[in-house]
Amino acid sequence: MKSFRKEIWIDTKNRVEFINITSSVEDALTESQIEEGLCLVNAMHITASVFINDAESGLHQDFKDWLENNIPHNPDLYRHNRTGETNGDAHIKRQFMGREVVLAVSGGKLDFGPWEQIYYGEFDGKRKKRVLIKIIGD
Amino acid sequence: MKSFRKEIWIDTKNRVEFINITSSVEDALTESQIEEGLCLVNAMHITASVFINDAESGLHQDFKDWLENNIPHNPDLYRHNRTGETNGDAHIKRQFMGREVVLAVSGGKLDFGPWEQIYYGEFDGKRKKRVLIKIIGD
Amino acid sequence: MKSFRKEIWIDTKNRVEFINITSSVEDALTESQIEEGLCLVNAMHITASVFINDAESGLHQDFKDWLENNIPHNPDLYRHNRTGETNGDAHIKRQFMGREVVLAVSGGKLDFGPWEQIYYGEFDGKRKKRVLIKIIGD
Repeated sequence: MKSFRKEIWIDTKNRVEFINITSSVEDALTESQIEEGLCLVNAMHITASVFINDAESGLHQDFKDWLENNIPHNPDLYRHNRTGETNGDAHIKRQFMGREVVLAVSGGKLDFGPWEQIYYGEFDGKRKKRVLIKIIGD
Repeated sequence: MKSFRKEIWIDTKNRVEFINITSSVEDALTESQIEEGLCLVNAMHITASVFINDAESGLHQDFKDWLENNIPHNPDLYRHNRTGETNGDAHIKRQFMGREVVLAVSGGKLDFGPWEQIYYGEFDGKRKKRVLIKIIGD
Repeated sequence: MKSFRKEIWIDTKNRVEFINITSSVEDALTESQIEEGLCLVNAMHITASVFINDAESGLHQDFKDWLENNIPHNPDLYRHNRTGETNGDAHIKRQFMGREVVLAVSGGKLDFGPWEQIYYGEFDGKRKKRVLIKIIGD
């Protein structure tokens, strides 16, 4: 069994931001030389998500709107922010969007459905963040 | 290390529908001849989910009601639908219910807790859809 | 390829409760002697979650408050409870928080980001519950 590990660094510009990391994960898979296996992609931060959805900017705004309407940023709403933080909402938003995705690797490719794209979702950005890729297989 | 890949095709009849795929995943595991490993089951569509929960029709209606009350179908609410789609809600509902499950394989069986059943959750159906099963192990 | 399986038993005292299981998972990894691979940690119950987030009690209360405000316990609200259950809300809360996490194993350690801690989240407790750990790799 082979294994491969790589971190991707992301320079987030906004508090809330979705960044398409599909090609970076594809590059990591090529580098790994793994043909058949599983590929884990996870946010290394607990106010961020990795998720698979559509590469469509209107939908991304719909996600942001839903999250803001249902889990508002307002720092006064969260006990967590009594510790001096302002990101209580970001920890909850990340649970909705998920921490990680696990993808099949088949024939040396990410085994995607027709419209699947991998996103890093940041909910407390404006700084450098990391994504972990771990691939195991043969 | 062995690996096994199989697609399940599902003929969805309704826009929103939950389909128990447990026995199909069990059949795939038998076919794979893998005894110890991990089994990934994911929706290949970005308006659908694979999740594990109870085989109880009242609960399924509770899920549908919660999703509709909190992420309404109304196509006017979503920017995504300006592209001509009507499924903005379905992309968000899928994030709540999740894209995939990863199951342990132990002693040649899916290593389930007492009531775990695997479901395909469709939020934009009335057509043929696919689920991917990938199993790796020995 | 090696594989390792372990169940953790948890004696939940409250209906809703979050329990840090990070050190139990680390102990299982040590016991497994696996250096490179993937580690699945899942709730074996369909009214419970395993998730990764912050070890901060104010945030845990924020999670509980958000879940109770958005998915209230009130047993009258759920069709599932017509079966005699009172835990309809717990099945839905678990979908928000997630069933499982998959972690990279690198150099014999859980490959954590800076603040990641693994939690068992119970939404229908006051009894003994189980978490499954499955690790595969070399």
